[in-house]
Amino acid sequence: MRLLEERILKDGTVKHGNVLKVDSFLNHQMDIGLFNEMGKEWKRLFEDVEVNKILTIEASGIGLAAIAAQYFEAPVVFAKKTMTINLDGELYTTRVQSFTHQRVYNVVVAKRFLSPEDHVLIIDDFLANGCAINGLMDLIYQAGATLAGVGIAIEKGFQDGGRELREKGIKLESLAIIKGMDDETGTIEFM
Amino acid sequence: MRLLEERILKDGTVKHGNVLKVDSFLNHQMDIGLFNEMGKEWKRLFEDVEVNKILTIEASGIGLAAIAAQYFEAPVVFAKKTMTINLDGELYTTRVQSFTHQRVYNVVVAKRFLSPEDHVLIIDDFLANGCAINGLMDLIYQAGATLAGVGIAIEKGFQDGGRELREKGIKLESLAIIKGMDDETGTIEFM
Repeated sequence: MRLLEERILKDGTVKHGNVLKVDSFLNHQMDIGLFNEMGKEWKRLFEDVEVNKILTIEASGIGLAAIAAQYFEAPVVFAKKTMTINLDGELYTTRVQSFTHQRVYNVVVAKRFLSPEDHVLIIDDFLANGCAINGLMDLIYQAGATLAGVGIAIEKGFQDGGRELREKGIKLESLAIIKGMDDETGTIEFM
Repeated sequence: MRLLEERILKDGTVKHGNVLKVDSFLNHQMDIGLFNEMGKEWKRLFEDVEVNKILTIEASGIGLAAIAAQYFEAPVVFAKKTMTINLDGELYTTRVQSFTHQRVYNVVVAKRFLSPEDHVLIIDDFLANGCAINGLMDLIYQAGATLAGVGIAIEKGFQDGGRELREKGIKLESLAIIKGMDDETGTIEFM
């Protein structure tokens, strides 16, 4: 998606360790106009797929998922990274390794919010090694729900997550795929 | 706001300890159609106030803030509850007691995203004792920004947060204000 790629080139910065900072428009601060264009694009890409629920993971996927959901006329469920006293009842649970936070999370969804009738589109901001997406897929499979597809804002194409999902036959639509980046020169190259 | 009150009566449940569960439509699972109606209502209530940025706190405020931001044509910044390695640079920091999680969080916003030019509307899902809102206000004041007002989905009117904000002259607009609730009978009464 040209609009997103241009924005990454304009406002993204490359940090040591293959970290791409896009926190001025994609997370931390969110450009809602851009999010609407991304939502429309995902709707176009998943036009032929039945979607009645959108699943994301807190926190930075929530804004994208909420805006995108308007084009699918579907509710959003966000998986939670910790147990809260508000979350009683039965839960689907999985474990996710976080690259950014360098730790392992318990990720949970209340069983009431995923069922075999659901056709679930996963939306998230980043795809790198695929740990978070695999965790969300695990929750969907535990529920007996159908995975409709995966919509990603920025895929790090030089890591394995995207390739593995595509090899499994999963419909994955990443709006920008990074081929490589260099923190010394600040260059970012797209596929 | 009648639509929200009716939804709380229909789908909300009262738990021991003055906990109101609204996770089937307001957090965890989010009814985006309802969020749009709430966003329009906040826009109507804050029509005469200058707003160029919306501030919320992760995680359950983000969806509401993102949808509401469409009516204000403003970006959303969400305050983060923990430090991440992606969040280098200078930060405004405050500490917030969480009733739900029974712990104290560091809450941070990158200094780049709040400035003296900003007229900031705070949006959040709940107001009870006001700890989270006071933390967000502290971040706004540290930045020298202007607090435009506070938009809340559900205020627990029997706790002190709302009264204290109104006594300070802050424009607070809560879309539903709960007068009292009873976990034995399941009744919820609005102001």
